[in-house]
Amino acid sequence: MRFDSPSSFGRHFRILTFGESHGPAVGVVLDGVKPGLPFDLEAIQQELDRRRPGQSDLVTPRQEADRLQILSGVFEGRTTGHPIALVVFNTNQRSGDYAALRDLFRPGHADLAYQRKYGLRDPRGGGRSSGRETLARVAAGAWAKARLAERGVTIRGFNREIAGIPGAGPEWAFVEANPLRSGDPEAFPVQRAAVEAARNAGDSVGGVCEVWIEGLPVGLGDPAFGKLDAELAHACMSIGAVKGVELGAGFAAARMKGSEHNDPLGPEGPLKNDAGGTLGGISSGAPVVVRLAVKPTSSIGQLQQTVDASGQPAQVRVEGRHDPCIAPRIVPVAEAMCALVVYDAWLEQESLRGADGAPLRDGPEAHLAEP
Amino acid sequence: MRFDSPSSFGRHFRILTFGESHGPAVGVVLDGVKPGLPFDLEAIQQELDRRRPGQSDLVTPRQEADRLQILSGVFEGRTTGHPIALVVFNTNQRSGDYAALRDLFRPGHADLAYQRKYGLRDPRGGGRSSGRETLARVAAGAWAKARLAERGVTIRGFNREIAGIPGAGPEWAFVEANPLRSGDPEAFPVQRAAVEAARNAGDSVGGVCEVWIEGLPVGLGDPAFGKLDAELAHACMSIGAVKGVELGAGFAAARMKGSEHNDPLGPEGPLKNDAGGTLGGISSGAPVVVRLAVKPTSSIGQLQQTVDASGQPAQVRVEGRHDPCIAPRIVPVAEAMCALVVYDAWLEQESLRGADGAPLRDGPEAHLAEP
Amino acid sequence: MRFDSPSSFGRHFRILTFGESHGPAVGVVLDGVKPGLPFDLEAIQQELDRRRPGQSDLVTPRQEADRLQILSGVFEGRTTGHPIALVVFNTNQRSGDYAALRDLFRPGHADLAYQRKYGLRDPRGGGRSSGRETLARVAAGAWAKARLAERGVTIRGFNREIAGIPGAGPEWAFVEANPLRSGDPEAFPVQRAAVEAARNAGDSVGGVCEVWIEGLPVGLGDPAFGKLDAELAHACMSIGAVKGVELGAGFAAARMKGSEHNDPLGPEGPLKNDAGGTLGGISSGAPVVVRLAVKPTSSIGQLQQTVDASGQPAQVRVEGRHDPCIAPRIVPVAEAMCALVVYDAWLEQESLRGADGAPLRDGPEAHLAEP
Amino acid sequence: MRFDSPSSFGRHFRILTFGESHGPAVGVVLDGVKPGLPFDLEAIQQELDRRRPGQSDLVTPRQEADRLQILSGVFEGRTTGHPIALVVFNTNQRSGDYAALRDLFRPGHADLAYQRKYGLRDPRGGGRSSGRETLARVAAGAWAKARLAERGVTIRGFNREIAGIPGAGPEWAFVEANPLRSGDPEAFPVQRAAVEAARNAGDSVGGVCEVWIEGLPVGLGDPAFGKLDAELAHACMSIGAVKGVELGAGFAAARMKGSEHNDPLGPEGPLKNDAGGTLGGISSGAPVVVRLAVKPTSSIGQLQQTVDASGQPAQVRVEGRHDPCIAPRIVPVAEAMCALVVYDAWLEQESLRGADGAPLRDGPEAHLAEP
Repeated sequence: MRFDSPSSFGRHFRILTFGESHGPAVGVVLDGVKPGLPFDLEAIQQELDRRRPGQSDLVTPRQEADRLQILSGVFEGRTTGHPIALVVFNTNQRSGDYAALRDLFRPGHADLAYQRKYGLRDPRGGGRSSGRETLARVAAGAWAKARLAERGVTIRGFNREIAGIPGAGPEWAFVEANPLRSGDPEAFPVQRAAVEAARNAGDSVGGVCEVWIEGLPVGLGDPAFGKLDAELAHACMSIGAVKGVELGAGFAAARMKGSEHNDPLGPEGPLKNDAGGTLGGISSGAPVVVRLAVKPTSSIGQLQQTVDASGQPAQVRVEGRHDPCIAPRIVPVAEAMCALVVYDAWLEQESLRGADGAPLRDGPEAHLAEP
Repeated sequence: MRFDSPSSFGRHFRILTFGESHGPAVGVVLDGVKPGLPFDLEAIQQELDRRRPGQSDLVTPRQEADRLQILSGVFEGRTTGHPIALVVFNTNQRSGDYAALRDLFRPGHADLAYQRKYGLRDPRGGGRSSGRETLARVAAGAWAKARLAERGVTIRGFNREIAGIPGAGPEWAFVEANPLRSGDPEAFPVQRAAVEAARNAGDSVGGVCEVWIEGLPVGLGDPAFGKLDAELAHACMSIGAVKGVELGAGFAAARMKGSEHNDPLGPEGPLKNDAGGTLGGISSGAPVVVRLAVKPTSSIGQLQQTVDASGQPAQVRVEGRHDPCIAPRIVPVAEAMCALVVYDAWLEQESLRGADGAPLRDGPEAHLAEP
Repeated sequence: MRFDSPSSFGRHFRILTFGESHGPAVGVVLDGVKPGLPFDLEAIQQELDRRRPGQSDLVTPRQEADRLQILSGVFEGRTTGHPIALVVFNTNQRSGDYAALRDLFRPGHADLAYQRKYGLRDPRGGGRSSGRETLARVAAGAWAKARLAERGVTIRGFNREIAGIPGAGPEWAFVEANPLRSGDPEAFPVQRAAVEAARNAGDSVGGVCEVWIEGLPVGLGDPAFGKLDAELAHACMSIGAVKGVELGAGFAAARMKGSEHNDPLGPEGPLKNDAGGTLGGISSGAPVVVRLAVKPTSSIGQLQQTVDASGQPAQVRVEGRHDPCIAPRIVPVAEAMCALVVYDAWLEQESLRGADGAPLRDGPEAHLAEP
Repeated sequence: MRFDSPSSFGRHFRILTFGESHGPAVGVVLDGVKPGLPFDLEAIQQELDRRRPGQSDLVTPRQEADRLQILSGVFEGRTTGHPIALVVFNTNQRSGDYAALRDLFRPGHADLAYQRKYGLRDPRGGGRSSGRETLARVAAGAWAKARLAERGVTIRGFNREIAGIPGAGPEWAFVEANPLRSGDPEAFPVQRAAVEAARNAGDSVGGVCEVWIEGLPVGLGDPAFGKLDAELAHACMSIGAVKGVELGAGFAAARMKGSEHNDPLGPEGPLKNDAGGTLGGISSGAPVVVRLAVKPTSSIGQLQQTVDASGQPAQVRVEGRHDPCIAPRIVPVAEAMCALVVYDAWLEQESLRGADGAPLRDGPEAHLAEP
């Protein structure tokens, strides 16, 4: 997925995110927005609320209002076709919590790398490296999701695994009804116990988040560097805690035979879906299934070995309010990133197959309506 | 990693690849090349030869000369600072092999998706979706690799696993000495037997390719969408047969506790490397370790269920010359893609910390020289 | 000059502007900012004040505070290397003035084109097409100007001509001391009388703005589409009222002989400057001189022939507060756009000639230090 | 108009040019090409032939075959939707002519700037700065022109003025029938005499090239930095010999009153065209009229004052085969650059107003069909 700056993402529909966790505001500019569309701020706010902390005793109790404001690009409730700037002003920053960390590099955090890369850093909650940056992604992704919903595409995520405990399913009705976004009511109590045990030990656990993209036409994504798989991998791996991404059978495919792994084709499309919804990097019409490896939260209450700003050995315990498992809050972020990729690929295909692009019998509408 | 077009990659050092497997030529334009550098065509040719088919009975016997030619950007053996166009004219195309496939969609191949995406396709060897496109990447990556070598960075890959058979190591001296690029002399005979068995059965197997990037300074990569992890994931997942990418502990991290997974920090950097060489998406000074899930080759000699161009059920057997395991030839491509990402990140950091960018005691040179 | 979106500009140092004249705010995100630099908000505010209306009876009396606020990217008075979002919240909008124009297209304005392009528009003061968008450019340009000043580059503009009355000079001390930014104390009274006459007749006049860029090293700008001339032309022609751009002798060069126009070269550089400071599109070390044709303000108090939203013939008189001559307020905008181009070209050259780029005796520092 | 590299141009339809005048080849990669379009190499070759030297005694007698070859992206006579690489291999290079210039910087040429910018240069015919680079633009522009012709848009250029001698008209039938591409049969003999006189004196003259873009719908071009005027200015000013660009009344507008310059609007669009076909930077439906100031050819046979590579004063006479007036050969290049801008703006508008972009009664088709 193209970007010019580490803070921007997308080609046709582009976003630029800005803001630090403890600066004045966090925001995003949506660019490449078509004119004349209703802009539903509340629908976007609802997606933001899904990633907000403080929603259960399994996530950080930090309370943030996170009310989104429109600065530009909307007139009388409709998009004008010009950049839409959205901001959330920061509140409840309690930067005091972080004073102690000013000269200590937290293991697993960006502290050391930022200090060395930039020569200075904002120690308050990680500044730009804070998970708070993802609220800008979720706001932008909510817009993309709504556009895709109009086209019959749904994007839903859940946690396939928490603390090493796999779940069956998913039972979608259950996912948003439990604080871990677990897909399996039977695995949930065990997963919950594992998270609580970690929290009580001042430790943390990880999980495997899975996103399903359903209702795609054949033909989204591009060859070479523009493969849908590649863009989804970039998008998902750019989320802070994610250390691995796979599509379909993923790593298991490396252990299969071609005769097992190849998905036979039928008139309606692939007859099974080990490929995870792509062929040659382009959507096949089958659901696109992406899995993200979410590492355990780096902020833990236990004493850890580290160095201080002068390079001397030291020990650090990360006080303050942290998630014993970040995977539940990664789910809406992963959905948002997938939505940005897929919506942009859709616009690319509209652009590729426009006007003089194709024989009528296979025009863009026909095409995008299939299968 | 930014791109404007599915065929281009890179921000500071950019490449644009073109060409189809059975068209007149395959090529690449290198852009953002600094002036006054010696241009060693033979060194690049040697990397191309590493991915060339026909090097053992475990890969396709197809013979290709793949001689690279310079069309521009080099004067009296030095780069001029202008775009360097490199091409390989195609020979030995035997497109006859593919005539039978003109109206059949091969399972696991891009055929169906291309036909539906573009409304037409070049059926000869997959056209643009052919693995042959990767020779342009290897040529460009060879250039990037050489620039990184000057900076003390080495990028080496091997197969950690073939046909589900894991190997220890790697023993680097052994890697280029065996046709599977296996890292383990003890596992190799078993892996080789598995590949041969698949070949004899007209089937194929996959593998797990691992790339080590050593000698990086702290500070390469960017926040948000520019994380080194994200760019490496994009780069590696854009290789045809790759269905999963992970860094460091990768998916195993999802099953670890924070207290296990966090790498303690010492004066020399991380004291272990479960993170795989990044902190907050930025290089930590530890080796960057990337693993790629390589699916079994889609082209198999067995009869498979499919549909024809008119959507009717059909059966297909892919004749012609194919690799029973593509993983060995993926290794140089994976190295090349990692080299493109890392070299571009290095140029980004040079640009970020140039002239007025930083206090002298922490200037770019000092910075980039650090451990 | 690259852009991905009509609202963004720059390659290494990029800006993205947003906001409508009567929406909540106008703003800009500065991206590609180096870390560790002092950020002087007041210095930027001073440049904004130079373009602010209401500073004399020769420009619109509209009063706007235009106080700039920082939303991100600055910590303890220094840049962090992350995007800097700057906004001005709109006040004193008096959109009532525009109610009458809701269904009328003003000649010379974007109204008709926006309505037809987007299918809807914000009729209040032109929305995105308002000159108010330029304050975002001036804020960004002020930052670029300060970086260039550190490098010994000065960028100054004045009006070479007002209402067809040319001036000699410029006398720089006089430029900022007169409301027309005329360069010639002798021509000024005549120019002023012409502007007053136009204002009193409910009419408007134009001018020719000239920008001098002094202190450039040899070597800024690029070949082909990246010529400094081309980027300056793009930058200046993107300012609302500008209908022509020329460098050096400009259109007069078309009437000269090669033997007259070619600037002979001496050891210190060109011996005269008909080229306007570039050779082959790259800075020659001589001052870069750019001239902009500024059309008369489109908003005039006289009755004009037009059509209404339904396409029916109508007449319109533009009430409200307008500049009888916009050229004085174009000067700081033109300086800002030139600063963006030159600073970006400087960063490009730093990047081109970094580390492995060149023989030491001709390294970037040496190089960029040269006359 | 966006570019990432000085050698690339365009957003939706992108080109990347490569090659030096005396290297192996000059070429261009067309990217963002829609699939399924007939690719007419001969039609492109014909445009190339229009800029080719040696067509009269008023231009350089150098003979070049300039036969274009397709390397990729075309299958069975149709575009595949993948990058189309086109090359012309260089012949008849006679670099001997330039040996004498190796250590001398020619006034008016890029020599000095390139040497200082890059630290080295290809002295043979200017290398990358050679006018020969424009054949890549003409090839790409020919493709864009053909796409625009399908949409009812015509792009035609001529010389409004040669050697300071203005012409009336244009009489289009006469333009391609005379070696100066003069638009006026009466002015032509005088213009011709002036060019011959310059040639015989070993001198050169300039001209003013004018391009008419007719048949545009309302709504092409974008706000802010994407104004059609700005993109045309960038495109035209990026042509080697061009030192000024204006639209419509251009510099004359600076001397008009608002009541004179504003184009009144009628139901069919503007009632006159001093704006030159744009409103707020967006096409108004009136013809877009662009004028380019073409400087006299820098290569002249007279002795000129210069410096050598060591910075010592010297004299130089440019031997070899040169155009006494380059304006006639600029015309097809200017048409090509305008075609690239307009075709890209058309694709942008298709993309902006696609699918969910607008109410049906004002959809892209309806919209783009309008006068």
